[in-house]
Amino acid sequence: MSERLTLALDIGGTKTAAALVTEDGALLERRRSRTPASLGAGAVMAEALGMARALMADHAPVGVGIGSAGVIDTDTGTVCSATDALPGWTGTDLRGIFHRELGLPVSVANDVHAHALGEYWRGAARDQECVLFVAVGTGVGGALLIDGHVRNGARSAAGHVGHVPVPEADGVACPCGTNGHVEAVASGPALERAHRVAGGPVTRLEDVVEAADRGVPSARTVLAVGARALGTALAGAANVLDPDLIVVGGGVTAAGKHWWPHLRQGVTDGTIPALRGLPVAASQLGADAALLGAARLVRREQG
Amino acid sequence: MSERLTLALDIGGTKTAAALVTEDGALLERRRSRTPASLGAGAVMAEALGMARALMADHAPVGVGIGSAGVIDTDTGTVCSATDALPGWTGTDLRGIFHRELGLPVSVANDVHAHALGEYWRGAARDQECVLFVAVGTGVGGALLIDGHVRNGARSAAGHVGHVPVPEADGVACPCGTNGHVEAVASGPALERAHRVAGGPVTRLEDVVEAADRGVPSARTVLAVGARALGTALAGAANVLDPDLIVVGGGVTAAGKHWWPHLRQGVTDGTIPALRGLPVAASQLGADAALLGAARLVRREQG
Repeated sequence: MSERLTLALDIGGTKTAAALVTEDGALLERRRSRTPASLGAGAVMAEALGMARALMADHAPVGVGIGSAGVIDTDTGTVCSATDALPGWTGTDLRGIFHRELGLPVSVANDVHAHALGEYWRGAARDQECVLFVAVGTGVGGALLIDGHVRNGARSAAGHVGHVPVPEADGVACPCGTNGHVEAVASGPALERAHRVAGGPVTRLEDVVEAADRGVPSARTVLAVGARALGTALAGAANVLDPDLIVVGGGVTAAGKHWWPHLRQGVTDGTIPALRGLPVAASQLGADAALLGAARLVRREQG
Repeated sequence: MSERLTLALDIGGTKTAAALVTEDGALLERRRSRTPASLGAGAVMAEALGMARALMADHAPVGVGIGSAGVIDTDTGTVCSATDALPGWTGTDLRGIFHRELGLPVSVANDVHAHALGEYWRGAARDQECVLFVAVGTGVGGALLIDGHVRNGARSAAGHVGHVPVPEADGVACPCGTNGHVEAVASGPALERAHRVAGGPVTRLEDVVEAADRGVPSARTVLAVGARALGTALAGAANVLDPDLIVVGGGVTAAGKHWWPHLRQGVTDGTIPALRGLPVAASQLGADAALLGAARLVRREQG
């Protein structure tokens, strides 16, 4: 008799991933492709469905879990809103379409929320009662895990840790349309921009990190300032939540030694005395986290 | 047959209040006195016990609920830490002492947490799933209400909304020992200080408000800047929590028209688009809120 498998999908602005996940969180088979975002929502959906069907050729999963970019209404499984990274994605009825096409029950969550749930199930946040999760990449997203559940909030918008004010961002335009939020100075693009402003000839974050490795002072400063600002914001959020720990993931964490110590110092310097020693852990699951979280969601919602 | 009554106490740095509370949240009889804080924890306890015994002379309450200043371990009912407002209060075994002296089951919570719970039961936060509560007075305290329960957090320290960073507080020392937090610029004493720095001859908040009433520009600016900074901080916390609403209480709210519009503008300007229209309500229960919350706590914990 074969094991009970879940089909997990992670649909982001740049890549789409799919996998079959076992009951104890092992990934049996996985696929990955570029998201055809510029071709519109229909193409993105077709790509994801194609990957799902390919995985179902030899296996019969019991349910489908989807982590998707955008604000997700988890009750209906539809996309409330999405950024320009996925044109036309707003309004997509993910649950309805996948259920109709695959004939299986479908659970949907925001991809960062799924990532956090994955870390709770099998990663850095395992069995912690209250976790503040932050993913630092193209944006600064996050999630609030309480008692093993990701809080959706009143408008499915909880977890926007990137939109806490910090002095470093005062007057700096934030992608959300306001200004002064930490995302405006701590995201990958913000760090690249800061390096250009400081006279750096390069534009990709990897190049900034490489320059920092070579000892270029401006590159080191740019990474340190962004990391510290994020630490200050996380401290502020932590002072409200008093979480068991903070888990940090996302591409920018690859800046490593030029970034982590400043992040941790910002958290230490900004937390109230009662929170001294608050652990700040690195995400453990990397690219698989959202897939695992999506699979976990299925187990939760579909029993 | 007499109604099931609860004995509620609210022990703060300046005043102590006690009341008998009915099952539907009416205050049958209430007493109030100055807290003899400078005489030490023993005197504070004696005063509170005296008020409790006086209320028990003609009634037989079924349990005792206490809202107390300081960080409270709700599992043990003891004071984890307290500020200089109550010297020697740290370590006080509130549950143990009241239980021994009065022979009743005792529930204890932080006074601001109790205030928030009161607003959930009978006030501005009634039946709301997720509420960010803030009390602006000598400090800027707060509470996070989720599904009708005040979150204590991992270290009994959740709800410290006054310790979110804002640009206005950059470099300004905060009573918590760090700097840059909104409490440093938005609390009552911070507003009084700002008015003195701006050349104002007066020191009490009421005088600042009165000067604003008379049209003194510096007084109006001081209140506006403090309120707006608090709005910015609340927006940041709201972006993480996505609450149904924000409830604001505490003595500083008496600054009225010189304060509220700026607070609301700060919230509006700082929230992400998904949170536009987030309601910001005034606390409805005033001085009785913590008593009602303490009574509610008894019903919760003692059935």
